[in-house]
Amino acid sequence: MRKFKLTLEYDGSNYHGWQVQPNGLAVQEVVEKAVEIIVQTRTHIMGAGRTDAGVHAKAQVAHFSADTRMSPVEIQKALNSLFPRDIVVAHIEEVSEDFDSRYFAKKKIYRYSILNRDYPSALGWNRCWFIQSPLDWEAMERASACLIGRHDFSSFRGANSDTKTSVRELYRLDLIREGDFIHLEFEGGGFLKYMVRIIVGTLVLVGKGKLAAEEVVKILESCDRQNAGPTAPPQGLCLIKIFYD
Amino acid sequence: MRKFKLTLEYDGSNYHGWQVQPNGLAVQEVVEKAVEIIVQTRTHIMGAGRTDAGVHAKAQVAHFSADTRMSPVEIQKALNSLFPRDIVVAHIEEVSEDFDSRYFAKKKIYRYSILNRDYPSALGWNRCWFIQSPLDWEAMERASACLIGRHDFSSFRGANSDTKTSVRELYRLDLIREGDFIHLEFEGGGFLKYMVRIIVGTLVLVGKGKLAAEEVVKILESCDRQNAGPTAPPQGLCLIKIFYD
Repeated sequence: MRKFKLTLEYDGSNYHGWQVQPNGLAVQEVVEKAVEIIVQTRTHIMGAGRTDAGVHAKAQVAHFSADTRMSPVEIQKALNSLFPRDIVVAHIEEVSEDFDSRYFAKKKIYRYSILNRDYPSALGWNRCWFIQSPLDWEAMERASACLIGRHDFSSFRGANSDTKTSVRELYRLDLIREGDFIHLEFEGGGFLKYMVRIIVGTLVLVGKGKLAAEEVVKILESCDRQNAGPTAPPQGLCLIKIFYD
Repeated sequence: MRKFKLTLEYDGSNYHGWQVQPNGLAVQEVVEKAVEIIVQTRTHIMGAGRTDAGVHAKAQVAHFSADTRMSPVEIQKALNSLFPRDIVVAHIEEVSEDFDSRYFAKKKIYRYSILNRDYPSALGWNRCWFIQSPLDWEAMERASACLIGRHDFSSFRGANSDTKTSVRELYRLDLIREGDFIHLEFEGGGFLKYMVRIIVGTLVLVGKGKLAAEEVVKILESCDRQNAGPTAPPQGLCLIKIFYD
């Protein structure tokens, strides 16, 4: 058996997230079906992490094992010819048999995009959260500083999260302005369910002046999801990069 | 009667172009229906120019006359609440009664985007022309130089074009590299039907090494559409800006 590491780009708009589940089509399912056609046997694809319904990926990583004589490039071309246009293999390589896309992942970058102006975007409505009222982005930046580092992020964790610990390390949280867009870039060792989206929802409350920047550290320390802001909508979120040794 | 100038952003993917026609839904039709609801009378919307089926606009300009007491901002908000998500009013202003979006237009900028790498884009497949074979973009740039200026562009005009003269002035044609993308920016006084897309199709032949850069001036001078390259696909094209005095 050979093992392959896949880097996938996808537009999450038409999918019920990465992970196979009963209520709708998942990206993982589309990938598994295409791999099955190519290697002619039912094959499990393991992703580095789940993305929620409607969330995009520039570089999701996954792996699978297969008995095939095809070269990685041949597999890439075959998969891209079978995939719908909103899923693409950006890169593929053969890896050692102990490789695991989930457990070997050291670090991830997520980006959340907000469009902050009078009118929405016709060309990018499914790539950002449109917010009409002007945001005080300096207050948001001030508020975000306390989140950097190693913390218990229980306050920013979605319900039904099945992870054992809610301690995570956030290395970087940058607010990047680009015209009418505000991109929030999160770099961390790992993320809890909805963590990025709940942080964004909370920082937007600060940006709107509905929550003082100084309150965010208290919300973090409270370890109570009830104190944080709403979960930001999925279409603004994109998994940008996953780092491996 | 008052007159209004509209600046519209739209994703052309789901429309049969700007102009109302019998075979499918046009952007103009959607705008006219929404304006009719707001001003409560059937209203003709005149665009600065047609965009083909599948072509996008960052800033198409159009005008209409109406008997209304609403302010421009009120009309903008009302239209944006009625439009589907792929059409947006970016700006609206009241103009003098002689204003005409088509005849007052001085200059337009179109941008054509090519994605040149091994694999297509899942997040941008309907915003670019994906070309897998490596393009010699310096040859394309060299070839493009002869097109700048005032010329008879008959060789780069689509069939069934109904304009009287095929002489147009191209002020600027820039090739801009951005990662794996090549953006071709056209600034001109006016454009013939399919002109940008046929020029792009011809320059891509040069980029692929199938046509010498020096041949492009001969194609221009021949005034014969048969000599030029194929029409590039519509989804890579976007109307960026229209200038008025």
